[in-house]
Amino acid sequence: MSLDTAPASLTATEAARKIRAGEITSEELVQSCLERIEALEDTIGAWTHLDKDYALAQAKAAQAQRQAGESLGPLHGVPVGIKDIFDTRDMPTENGTVLHAGRQPKADSTVVALLRQAGAIIMGKTVTTELAVLHPGKTANPHDPKRTPGGSSSGSAAAVASYMVPLATGSQTNGSMIRPASFCGIYGYKPTHGLISRHGVLPQSRFLDQIGVFSRTLEDAALMAQVLIAHDPNDPDTRPHAPPHLMKTLAGEPPVPPRLAFVTTPAWDEFADDDSKAAFPELMEHLGDSADTLALHKPFVNVYGWLKTIMGADQAMSYRREYERGKDKLSPILVDMIEQGQKVLALDYNQAAATREGLNLLLSEIFDEYDAIVTPASTGQAPLGLDTTGNPIFSTPWTFCGVPAISLPLLQGSDGMPIGVQLVGPRGDDARLLRTARWLVEAVDAE
Amino acid sequence: MSLDTAPASLTATEAARKIRAGEITSEELVQSCLERIEALEDTIGAWTHLDKDYALAQAKAAQAQRQAGESLGPLHGVPVGIKDIFDTRDMPTENGTVLHAGRQPKADSTVVALLRQAGAIIMGKTVTTELAVLHPGKTANPHDPKRTPGGSSSGSAAAVASYMVPLATGSQTNGSMIRPASFCGIYGYKPTHGLISRHGVLPQSRFLDQIGVFSRTLEDAALMAQVLIAHDPNDPDTRPHAPPHLMKTLAGEPPVPPRLAFVTTPAWDEFADDDSKAAFPELMEHLGDSADTLALHKPFVNVYGWLKTIMGADQAMSYRREYERGKDKLSPILVDMIEQGQKVLALDYNQAAATREGLNLLLSEIFDEYDAIVTPASTGQAPLGLDTTGNPIFSTPWTFCGVPAISLPLLQGSDGMPIGVQLVGPRGDDARLLRTARWLVEAVDAE
Repeated sequence: MSLDTAPASLTATEAARKIRAGEITSEELVQSCLERIEALEDTIGAWTHLDKDYALAQAKAAQAQRQAGESLGPLHGVPVGIKDIFDTRDMPTENGTVLHAGRQPKADSTVVALLRQAGAIIMGKTVTTELAVLHPGKTANPHDPKRTPGGSSSGSAAAVASYMVPLATGSQTNGSMIRPASFCGIYGYKPTHGLISRHGVLPQSRFLDQIGVFSRTLEDAALMAQVLIAHDPNDPDTRPHAPPHLMKTLAGEPPVPPRLAFVTTPAWDEFADDDSKAAFPELMEHLGDSADTLALHKPFVNVYGWLKTIMGADQAMSYRREYERGKDKLSPILVDMIEQGQKVLALDYNQAAATREGLNLLLSEIFDEYDAIVTPASTGQAPLGLDTTGNPIFSTPWTFCGVPAISLPLLQGSDGMPIGVQLVGPRGDDARLLRTARWLVEAVDAE
Repeated sequence: MSLDTAPASLTATEAARKIRAGEITSEELVQSCLERIEALEDTIGAWTHLDKDYALAQAKAAQAQRQAGESLGPLHGVPVGIKDIFDTRDMPTENGTVLHAGRQPKADSTVVALLRQAGAIIMGKTVTTELAVLHPGKTANPHDPKRTPGGSSSGSAAAVASYMVPLATGSQTNGSMIRPASFCGIYGYKPTHGLISRHGVLPQSRFLDQIGVFSRTLEDAALMAQVLIAHDPNDPDTRPHAPPHLMKTLAGEPPVPPRLAFVTTPAWDEFADDDSKAAFPELMEHLGDSADTLALHKPFVNVYGWLKTIMGADQAMSYRREYERGKDKLSPILVDMIEQGQKVLALDYNQAAATREGLNLLLSEIFDEYDAIVTPASTGQAPLGLDTTGNPIFSTPWTFCGVPAISLPLLQGSDGMPIGVQLVGPRGDDARLLRTARWLVEAVDAE
């Protein structure tokens, strides 16, 4: 993964600073990223739509803007990969299914509009699994092309991990941000449910769908998320509020050393791989008094069933047209999920949904004492084979509760593959979560 | 219904002014209302909990406050009836079912807390139908005790109509505000969904439940609603916003004469009684060029089924404990509704819920051209007999859409019973709706 001194090796924060200062141009950066893509795309398969000339044209327009002395956004000239479920007015958005082949949205999703407003170059569209569920696309893991990059945000995670772009968008309905970040060895940050608008993003489940960002540094994750967190009347779950000061808080010191709660979740025994079972206790030992080991209260055992109930019924509704008109062109696994979802009773659905507030109350008891929960981001190393994207189960409780989560590339498995550490905070306290994450990264680096 | 010059005959606005000015005391007003109750309660049966001494004690405390020169709220000293599904920390809240007999909440509902804060005297608890659904309580119609007062806010509407209190709270999940207001010949105002908090009110359906006010004048409805409209983090459907200036807008003149759309709804042919079928065309004739007759677009034919789907499934969830533990103490009609609701599929539920935004878009086409929709508030005169509360069907489209609605006591049937005219406006434009209502009332009075 080493990259010598090519501009593509820059973080988004560095790149934005250098472009602003005139030390490099956006065109040089985009050109360097395109060369990286040229060299690796055949192996990685991160992109589903990429027009080099159009990317360069955007970079040239950015330069012209700068030369004209216009005010420049925080991502001015920085290329960003867009998961192919985010509508783009100038590129197709095919949602990972042949049923939507050639689909050209008329308008940008709110996220893409905000990125453009911040000066970003919309580099292209990255591979998603089929309709952002489980059936994989063509993408391979940059650390080992025989392994899955995870999903559903497969292309975005792989593109950032292989230095094709410094930033990319993702989304998570169960584990679609945190798992690929863990498998690909990068940062994957999924803010609190409702902070980032889903308008113009393929809707799968209003209850569960959450937007996030991939980056190679924490600072970059904060930079990009800060641009995207905004009230949008088109997403009824976003709210008018003062935006969190992610970058400022991240740059500051914690007033006191954070305390962490290590929570393995009910999935640990059965689903964590041997590498995880060795690495996490080591991490906890290293953290010493800073971390206690906790068990989740009993109702969390049921959260996997509740998520399945809600996700299935929501898929049955969201993908009804695809099911009715093109069932034979959907993967068997998705057809099965939809057909299970069709049978869900409203009573069971609504009772599952109603548990979220109670679960968050239980979590808030933990967060009264601890700054964040430390927990696996995935089953461990990315599994071998490209016919699955791995198991999202270590994200399920946090996605269900809508709490902010971030995967930190801190551990390594016995095959040299990255293993992410997931940090989870209370709803709405995203800035503190990022600051705690930085503390943890530094504590591990100091090892 | 005539009342000579007793303080109980005062409107809330007049009473508040006189108390403030020292022309009458709150105690005199409450005493007068209690005498009215004493005289009529055996016939009307509006109250399920009333402690005269406690009401007078509140009035005395209000006087002491005034004498101490404290700042006085807009309802200072004015008695208000509280539907017995609103929690009160100092009175039982029994929700119209023996299963909740003796239930004493620990805290006030947000509405009751706001009323106390505004200086209101919490007079007592008024009769609701069983769990705010259809099975009637003991209340009779003040205009004819052989007839239903409507429901589910039966006691509140009857108490205001019979001058027992100038104001009362109500709630509407289908037609529980507008229908009793129509049958009892008073104003019933149900603001836009989400303007008034439902925290501490018996939850039946988050999608449908809406809070409202009963009064004998429009000004009083505005006065009380202004007190209650407030963001409450405990009700996730209320939002932070600048409150509408109901009283100020009501007092102003429309900039141009309003235009009204007369909409009979798909229920008209089958469900409107002969008196309505005679009275409404006359009203339209009187309004002449100010009103056009419109048909609702086709999807509104389905709104009755969609509401039933959502209400049934929500009742099955909200009243699950009552059903499981005390089914034999529930009315057959409610048991049947719950059992129907248990069978509703999540897919059908969510698809029904998803239609609301589209229906509101269709309504907004009407509201682009017309200030308000004029439509029946009920089937017509209150039906004879106390074994039913009548049919809520003329409220169904508006409750489902969450638009503001008000019943105006403008018409009379052949038996001398009142018939309400319902005025409906676009979501969030409550102040204009009240101003248009005043215009309509004056236009009819000028006849």
